Amino acid sequence: MSLIVQKYGGSSVANAELIKNVAKRVIEGYEAGNQMIVVVSAMGDTTDHLIELMGDITDDPDPREVDMLLTTGEQVSIALLTMAIHSLGYPAISLTGSQMKIKTNEKHNQAMITDIDTTRLKRELSENKIVIVAGFQGVNENQDFTTLGRGGSDTTTVAVAAAIKADRCEIYSDVDGVYTADPRLVKNASKLDYISYEEMLELANLGANVLHPRAVELANNYNLKLYIASSFNKTKGTIVRGDEKMEGKKNVVGVASDLGEIKITVERVPDEPGIAGKMFRSLADFGVNVDMIIQNLQRDELNDITFTINQEQEKLAVKVLEKIKRELRFNNYSIDRDVAKISIVGAGMQSTPGVAARMFTSLGENSINIGMITTSEIKISCLIKKEDANNAINVLHQEFKLDEINN
Amino acid sequence: MSLIVQKYGGSSVANAELIKNVAKRVIEGYEAGNQMIVVVSAMGDTTDHLIELMGDITDDPDPREVDMLLTTGEQVSIALLTMAIHSLGYPAISLTGSQMKIKTNEKHNQAMITDIDTTRLKRELSENKIVIVAGFQGVNENQDFTTLGRGGSDTTTVAVAAAIKADRCEIYSDVDGVYTADPRLVKNASKLDYISYEEMLELANLGANVLHPRAVELANNYNLKLYIASSFNKTKGTIVRGDEKMEGKKNVVGVASDLGEIKITVERVPDEPGIAGKMFRSLADFGVNVDMIIQNLQRDELNDITFTINQEQEKLAVKVLEKIKRELRFNNYSIDRDVAKISIVGAGMQSTPGVAARMFTSLGENSINIGMITTSEIKISCLIKKEDANNAINVLHQEFKLDEINN
Repeated sequence: MSLIVQKYGGSSVANAELIKNVAKRVIEGYEAGNQMIVVVSAMGDTTDHLIELMGDITDDPDPREVDMLLTTGEQVSIALLTMAIHSLGYPAISLTGSQMKIKTNEKHNQAMITDIDTTRLKRELSENKIVIVAGFQGVNENQDFTTLGRGGSDTTTVAVAAAIKADRCEIYSDVDGVYTADPRLVKNASKLDYISYEEMLELANLGANVLHPRAVELANNYNLKLYIASSFNKTKGTIVRGDEKMEGKKNVVGVASDLGEIKITVERVPDEPGIAGKMFRSLADFGVNVDMIIQNLQRDELNDITFTINQEQEKLAVKVLEKIKRELRFNNYSIDRDVAKISIVGAGMQSTPGVAARMFTSLGENSINIGMITTSEIKISCLIKKEDANNAINVLHQEFKLDEINN
Repeated sequence: MSLIVQKYGGSSVANAELIKNVAKRVIEGYEAGNQMIVVVSAMGDTTDHLIELMGDITDDPDPREVDMLLTTGEQVSIALLTMAIHSLGYPAISLTGSQMKIKTNEKHNQAMITDIDTTRLKRELSENKIVIVAGFQGVNENQDFTTLGRGGSDTTTVAVAAAIKADRCEIYSDVDGVYTADPRLVKNASKLDYISYEEMLELANLGANVLHPRAVELANNYNLKLYIASSFNKTKGTIVRGDEKMEGKKNVVGVASDLGEIKITVERVPDEPGIAGKMFRSLADFGVNVDMIIQNLQRDELNDITFTINQEQEKLAVKVLEKIKRELRFNNYSIDRDVAKISIVGAGMQSTPGVAARMFTSLGENSINIGMITTSEIKISCLIKKEDANNAINVLHQEFKLDEINN
């Protein structure tokens, strides 16, 4: 008998038929003799519908009330999934974030889980019930409902699995595993059998939409193996786990392209100590997340500072730059929206010389110009033109033979 | 400064525009220097939509999960109304049944309120916030969400007003007061300025859709005055209050017709002590609510027992009768669906001889046959044919000069 925590995403419970399908899958696990805890998201577009309703009322909603509104989404799906399990003749009970005592800090809309009191969860399990848990939501000390923000349901799942010391943690959605590249962009992309937390984290940060980075980090902290697979079929998925000692660690396990960034160049900033620091501090203070940064060679004691941000933060960034212009003594900045970030990820690259060179060379040979470069121990990213993104990702996928990766 | 509890029904918050309208009305009260507590129902057809969703999953849902599902309805409306108040620049906070600590017994779908812990409510009021409360819902000792069943939001409102010792309790819906008869049926129906709890209770039980009998009883218990009016206009509504000592108490304050009952006649039941008791006990055990009852003259030591029930319970009643047929030694029963119950209500009739006679005479003079009669201290009901209902209600409205009642 294992204790299994499963998560089903919004598209997996988007309508009554799909909910019944999930019920059957959960029951299979229960029938096999396991204790089952199931975390569910809000049905399909429920959250969008609630946000639309809210938009008709106000442009500037109070975060506490947003959480009051949005937490109803998962509450509906846990009730319906529980009913579906009952109707197949199995015992089940639904629990909201507050009933599950998923305690969070006060930060509405992006709360952090501080603790999970598993008393009730254990009691329900001991009565042989399948426990259906609302993802994405918790409760603060004031008994107010909170939501965990992006990747919330994944985070709930991993946190519950860690708190209850689950034997298995399975994340089901409409994506059937982790691929070497987006299969819509690269025809012969391969599904990975295994991936390490670090690699998954990089890919998740690069927009691989299978698992939120927060959940990956949490799993890494608790060394909790995750199984990523589809709720729509029984195809084998991908296991996310700690690096195991083995020969032949892969250089590169994935290629990703991110078309959601823009590049801002702040021109002719005085070359004085602390100026760049001030600029990025101001951006951070206003919540602008900066990704890549380069500072060009100086001319006349003046620097060009270039950085990328998510395109959704363009207006905010401009506001900040206008605010600090005078203090930092620069006049101009330019915005380039025609950029794509192309990255390769692999835990093995840190011990394999020449990976970067292979990347740059193969892009160059295919006439793809590189604008900016950043590297981490297990990732190399290049900024290129948007129109080159599709070509670049295929070139790199082939260069690193990712279609053969599981062999 | 008064402490006011207001309730807005589902049709009063059916969309964003209406929610904004309610926000304005609430703020008027707040601006006038009052402390405001506002109970809201689920938006318009939200509950129907949830029930439909549920119907796609199961025909026999677990009552606990039904409550888990349905309580989301009010949670959505309290969040949205609170946001609407914020957007007009006023402080407000929403509280669910569980956050309000509206404690109930365990009986899901038709829970009874056992206690309200007003600690948090008082704290929020002391911070000058308008408190928006989810109607219809509470929480049991297990921290599970419960719903109060029919008339739930009215009951929440009166219970909260009683617990917090409110100065005023106002019930707003799409009905602008209590009328002497349904204005759709009787052209010159008058709105009553005042009505007593007892009269309101009878009218509510007769289907006057302005206030649930449970809420009226609760208000009566706490001697809490209620003001019933429309949220769509500022027309003066009706005050429901205890009988005040005054001359000239009205004989009759209202006429109502109820087309929702059917008549069942159980034929030739042995005339033995306890037989009728057994029959009605069995019906009650299965949840069949019996309204009017008559037992006909005996023939050959056999009685005909006739009673009326809500038409929705026909199948259930038949099931019970089939079950007890043998034990009670009867063979036949007949069902008459072509019936209407017509009633007159008035606290003054108990001290005014001849009211019943006037009722029967005027019906007779208009060729309306009376099938069954029941009376209480403040009500007389007659069962007539459905086709006569409209005529009967107008005849009685005129007979008792209800168009002039406020004069």
